[in-house]
Amino acid sequence: MSEDGRITAIREVGEFGLIARMKSALGGTKSDDVIVGIDDDAAVYRIGGGRVHVVTTDALTEGVHFDRLMMPMPYLGSKCIAVNVSDIAAMNAVPRYATIALGIPDNLSVEDVEALYRGIRMACDAYDLDVIGGDTTAAHGLTLSVTVIGEAEIDRIVFRRGAQPGDLLCLTGEVGASYAGLKVLLEQRRELQEKGEDYSPNIEPFHHVIQRHLVPKPRLDVIRAWAELDVKPNALIDISDGVASEVHHLCNNSGVGAEVFVAAIPVGFETRNVADDFEEDVDTYALFGGEDYELLFTAPSEMTELMDETTFSVIGRITAEPGVTAMLANGESFPLEMGGFQHFEGDTDADRDA
Amino acid sequence: MSEDGRITAIREVGEFGLIARMKSALGGTKSDDVIVGIDDDAAVYRIGGGRVHVVTTDALTEGVHFDRLMMPMPYLGSKCIAVNVSDIAAMNAVPRYATIALGIPDNLSVEDVEALYRGIRMACDAYDLDVIGGDTTAAHGLTLSVTVIGEAEIDRIVFRRGAQPGDLLCLTGEVGASYAGLKVLLEQRRELQEKGEDYSPNIEPFHHVIQRHLVPKPRLDVIRAWAELDVKPNALIDISDGVASEVHHLCNNSGVGAEVFVAAIPVGFETRNVADDFEEDVDTYALFGGEDYELLFTAPSEMTELMDETTFSVIGRITAEPGVTAMLANGESFPLEMGGFQHFEGDTDADRDA
Repeated sequence: MSEDGRITAIREVGEFGLIARMKSALGGTKSDDVIVGIDDDAAVYRIGGGRVHVVTTDALTEGVHFDRLMMPMPYLGSKCIAVNVSDIAAMNAVPRYATIALGIPDNLSVEDVEALYRGIRMACDAYDLDVIGGDTTAAHGLTLSVTVIGEAEIDRIVFRRGAQPGDLLCLTGEVGASYAGLKVLLEQRRELQEKGEDYSPNIEPFHHVIQRHLVPKPRLDVIRAWAELDVKPNALIDISDGVASEVHHLCNNSGVGAEVFVAAIPVGFETRNVADDFEEDVDTYALFGGEDYELLFTAPSEMTELMDETTFSVIGRITAEPGVTAMLANGESFPLEMGGFQHFEGDTDADRDA
Repeated sequence: MSEDGRITAIREVGEFGLIARMKSALGGTKSDDVIVGIDDDAAVYRIGGGRVHVVTTDALTEGVHFDRLMMPMPYLGSKCIAVNVSDIAAMNAVPRYATIALGIPDNLSVEDVEALYRGIRMACDAYDLDVIGGDTTAAHGLTLSVTVIGEAEIDRIVFRRGAQPGDLLCLTGEVGASYAGLKVLLEQRRELQEKGEDYSPNIEPFHHVIQRHLVPKPRLDVIRAWAELDVKPNALIDISDGVASEVHHLCNNSGVGAEVFVAAIPVGFETRNVADDFEEDVDTYALFGGEDYELLFTAPSEMTELMDETTFSVIGRITAEPGVTAMLANGESFPLEMGGFQHFEGDTDADRDA
């Protein structure tokens, strides 16, 4: 309750409204070493010698971000590292260290925890970081709060705010697959609940999209290749909430607009099949799917020509005029809404960096 | 379930057993920059220029670590920062940055969150650190997972493992007060639940101990004074689980033993009154209370003579022989058990760094 006795439900202000209130209550940062605080994929602070550390925190909560029925422990362990590594990659940095606060419910066994930590170790080995600390505590549902610290030379860091009119809008890999995988898993759960013992899972044809949902792969390979080629984009963000939402974030932070060529957004064969099976529009998966953990970036064509063209697609261009416009293959266009998922507003399968 | 199909309940192995399993699943750290990982109050890694960063994570969970009925939001915000700052102080370092993963239940209002963050800001201003990032997500109960990053010159860092035979065992401030405050608050809650509208709170005589429980003050003042005097102890830990438990940690990590002079442990007047009221032994509060966030350290007398004698008490000495012995004023002695609180073993008011 506030001093004037008002009680405001969080859904009234929404997630971004709530974050604005938090930032206001916190005031600005005091240290001159802080380059970016709450406003990007990860915070950035100087550590001396022309280098910076970047830090990000993401929590995965049972019943909100995952269902233990559909998420084997090693995958969950791997994913909780991967989503944080993706935020580090989104600053054009590489991960170094992780801490994990683990909330353990009554019905979790020692073997579950060991399987979880084997998954954590696999991801840490794959992305070359070390778990150096943590905290374990009893909890009502399984909760993993992971903090990852990464590093970079100060002039390698790329923010959301650097997009320039005339830049190409580019995307690594494919999108929509993670959402398609989630749809398949939810359908399988529904069938399991309906049929009970008569249930026989049918996930073979959907192996790829389920994999994309359960074991996302942050694009550190692209970050490392850029460093070797000594190239970097003007602006960079990772796809956690869906392409449409992330394009809006890039544009809002940079004070520019964008045209998005919807047909140019890469969507895999299996993702199209899932959309067909559910009689849904695959463009919805591509634009609003989320949890793909690919990289969205902008750069002038002179820069993109120096990059490995097999690692990304050009899906639009940055405009001086604000606003994000979706361009269809038939020449039609319409304003592209953010869409995507926000917490506290009905949907329960995504979250947001504060 | 393990590969051989076994299911082991976490209470069978206990919290420290579980942490050992996690460490085993994780394997060792890969980076040469990691000086200490999971084995101390905070992890330590080199950042170059003869300096290190230290990082710690602590989660506070509703219904496990606190009861919202007894813990006003600004106090909770302040405490979640303070307990992490105490872990940084326990490495002889100072805090710089914090990230906060906030799990928000349905019944929390925007005004609650604002009050929480005002408390966080107060603590950050008091201890001179900045909140630079975080994550907000829906959750079943209010959860605060806080990570604090601190820094120090590499040769200022003090570990748990440095205690030497002949060192004095020293303690800043007083202990037992936080536990006494918790006892009073639990009693008040019981009365509130019994009497309902007829309840009239009686907390005035217990203002100090309640304050110690709700708003613990990590001893950064002592850390800063040591730096100014260019003195430091051989071994250092903070009192989160109780004096007895922390003495054991220091001794186990250092491969030494200790004699603890129980009558020399400073306990406040009000704490004694609470123990009397509950007809309990105040030594139990002093030895096993927990959550005092004072500093326990060992140093040779040549070093302690250089420290401000008003800031600490000598409560024992380090011995070459392993084992911790409690020495009473009447000349009796007995082996001092760890006691204190462990999660997953019945008690619910403390936690443990992993």
